[in-house]
Amino acid sequence: MYGKEITKVFDEKGIKIWDTVRIEKSGIYYEGIVMPRTEAGDENTLVVKQKDGYNIGIGIKGAKIEKIASSGQKPEPTLPKKRVSPGLSKVSLLYTGGTIGNKVDYKTGGVYALTKPEELLDEVPELAGIANIDPQKISSVASEDMTSSNWAKIASEAARALNSGSKGIIVTIGTDTMHYAAAALSFMLEGLTGPVVLTGAQRSSDRGSSDAFQNLICSAHIAAKSDIAEVGICMHSTSSDGKCSFIRGTKVRKMHTSRRDAFKPVNSKPIAHVDVNGEIQYGSGYSRTGGSSKVEARTGFDEKVALIKAYPGSDPGIIDYYTGKDYKGIIIEGTGLGHVPNFTEDRAKSWLPEVTDAINSGVIVGMTSQCLYGRVNPNVYRTLRMLSAAGVVYCEDMLPEVAYVKLGWLLGNFKADIAKEKLNKNLAGEITGRTLYEEFTD
Amino acid sequence: MYGKEITKVFDEKGIKIWDTVRIEKSGIYYEGIVMPRTEAGDENTLVVKQKDGYNIGIGIKGAKIEKIASSGQKPEPTLPKKRVSPGLSKVSLLYTGGTIGNKVDYKTGGVYALTKPEELLDEVPELAGIANIDPQKISSVASEDMTSSNWAKIASEAARALNSGSKGIIVTIGTDTMHYAAAALSFMLEGLTGPVVLTGAQRSSDRGSSDAFQNLICSAHIAAKSDIAEVGICMHSTSSDGKCSFIRGTKVRKMHTSRRDAFKPVNSKPIAHVDVNGEIQYGSGYSRTGGSSKVEARTGFDEKVALIKAYPGSDPGIIDYYTGKDYKGIIIEGTGLGHVPNFTEDRAKSWLPEVTDAINSGVIVGMTSQCLYGRVNPNVYRTLRMLSAAGVVYCEDMLPEVAYVKLGWLLGNFKADIAKEKLNKNLAGEITGRTLYEEFTD
Repeated sequence: MYGKEITKVFDEKGIKIWDTVRIEKSGIYYEGIVMPRTEAGDENTLVVKQKDGYNIGIGIKGAKIEKIASSGQKPEPTLPKKRVSPGLSKVSLLYTGGTIGNKVDYKTGGVYALTKPEELLDEVPELAGIANIDPQKISSVASEDMTSSNWAKIASEAARALNSGSKGIIVTIGTDTMHYAAAALSFMLEGLTGPVVLTGAQRSSDRGSSDAFQNLICSAHIAAKSDIAEVGICMHSTSSDGKCSFIRGTKVRKMHTSRRDAFKPVNSKPIAHVDVNGEIQYGSGYSRTGGSSKVEARTGFDEKVALIKAYPGSDPGIIDYYTGKDYKGIIIEGTGLGHVPNFTEDRAKSWLPEVTDAINSGVIVGMTSQCLYGRVNPNVYRTLRMLSAAGVVYCEDMLPEVAYVKLGWLLGNFKADIAKEKLNKNLAGEITGRTLYEEFTD
Repeated sequence: MYGKEITKVFDEKGIKIWDTVRIEKSGIYYEGIVMPRTEAGDENTLVVKQKDGYNIGIGIKGAKIEKIASSGQKPEPTLPKKRVSPGLSKVSLLYTGGTIGNKVDYKTGGVYALTKPEELLDEVPELAGIANIDPQKISSVASEDMTSSNWAKIASEAARALNSGSKGIIVTIGTDTMHYAAAALSFMLEGLTGPVVLTGAQRSSDRGSSDAFQNLICSAHIAAKSDIAEVGICMHSTSSDGKCSFIRGTKVRKMHTSRRDAFKPVNSKPIAHVDVNGEIQYGSGYSRTGGSSKVEARTGFDEKVALIKAYPGSDPGIIDYYTGKDYKGIIIEGTGLGHVPNFTEDRAKSWLPEVTDAINSGVIVGMTSQCLYGRVNPNVYRTLRMLSAAGVVYCEDMLPEVAYVKLGWLLGNFKADIAKEKLNKNLAGEITGRTLYEEFTD
């Protein structure tokens, strides 16, 4: 329920949820249906659904509210008419769950996930003017609960849709682990014939400040009209509305808990920028359509891979823990250029013996940097050379999360020796070719 | 040794290491003593020590080299004359190890650590004009090998020096874990009477592109002249020379493996900017000198604390591993607003049962976000509320590394119930007071 101030106005004017009201604030008029307060919404911000279907949040302070019509009943959702515009490309929208599909349950006030992806399309009527969207529900999984089997399902469906005439794919997915999924799809999908665009929302679509609409519209433009044949994430470029970035799936990371522009390219630049009107500005060096006529989905994934962090005082016994559970691969987030504690005063905190044992027992150990930006390099310091000599694979400028996903995918599809060999070779844009010398003399 | 091209010129002109040469390149003349190639140095970049004591690296391509004088012998280092300028403040320089103190061993070509901090001062004659620097060697530990006992030693010495008349402290330290150390000192030092400035170098001081000199000079300005009474890191603001940022010790992170401007404030702004001429531009909201007359070092630290990352497919058994080893605290780097896998298809991958067991057995579990930027928030989604209800402490906008250091420090100095209570209360600027509502409506 709304807070005291709004409740007071409601009581005075006899306004109820679902009534139609007119609001004046700072000389601007708004008209719409009073929506229930969302669970995470501010208690002093009134949310109304405007005639164009969009919700808007208006701070109560300084706002004048008049009731126009009573309703007292939740309006029935109008499902979109199925229509196919002959001039537009077909785009498959794979709905998997996440905030973009969350709505408030008007009975309980809680957030619930949409059951039909069509409801999402209903919220964004502009989409019908960009492409013939073919919605399909893959799952209804929260981002933190996504696993490799969810990624495999998305990859298979994306391949199937592209091979059945879709120009491009939109995947709506929760943002928390969207970049893990983007990396997985980047490795799983081979011979792409069009763009695979992951998108979502940092705020659910019934909130005034939701980013869902712009993200969907921009994603549709990329999916329907671009010549890109890559997997990437399409979300807000800045915290203001207007533009989205399309960032390569292996070079992107969620870098903010809540901002709309949370997704940033790391050691990379966006493949493209796109605005809500469909204007696409391309960057350089991306894979273009036309190189392939059939998409293959190679969806194997070995779950016996771990991602661990090395830090002052960290316990190298964690390596033994995983080898004891028959893990086949470990990615370390080292410090700086790819360090782990080694010549510590307390020798029990030295990682090199455990790392060496693991490698000797056949475990693949990859090194990345918790700095995130930059490149690991085993050639500068003694401990680094020792780790490298022991067989640690230095993963260049690959993100830790991407290295984790890559190693799981490699071990799920190739023999261990091939997997090890491929780990620090570029397969899907995850490693870029900047040389050591350039890196050091910026 | 240098590469083919330089070796060829050396052979032609009879030039040996330690000879004095004159070099012309692009119309500019350089003169100095030929230095051995550093281990990590480029093989085509000739390094000469100029008369002013600074080394410069010159790419061989297009350079004309003439020998001026033979030497063939390593020049003796000239240790600085001990001098005290009456008008200048006393600043203690605590030398702990790291790249800033690395030099090339001219016999072996390997990198070695300085044995005397005076050698470092010798390299930067400007320091004597800024403060009466009192150098002291605390340790010679590489950054990745630093532990809480090293931090405790630095804290004790810093307190002692401040209580014995030093205006401020410079701590030279390796960059890889500098931000962990800065957080530790921020908690360990109470009642600061002056600035404690951590600094270091991304490239060692005998390299042409070294950032050591500027970082030391700017740190000396902050330590000697500012009215700041906080622990912070003073390193390059940008990849160009000229300015350094002084960033609060609890709000800073190494964000690049090799760039000079690797240290960035997270969820914060720098306390100050300072240029090599000593001009200090202050930000807002820092602790000023004058509030205290005596510094206390509370250096306890409980090593039975772990920092772990949650990600798709991650194994919650890792919690059992640590509780089985009698760990008292665990900081989780969750996804997004502070999530862990919970309602996964494979229930063995659900973290909530293990987290609940750990908390029930007395372990303190803190939640941070691997996004790094932003703030965790247990009020938005169901799983978050369940974790919070189970007793997980949501650590606001604290960095994961800072939360780890803080929990180790808390458990080393307070009873568990007090430690838990203090974990998400601001003690040293690690939590900022931006409200949830602001965060969501940027």
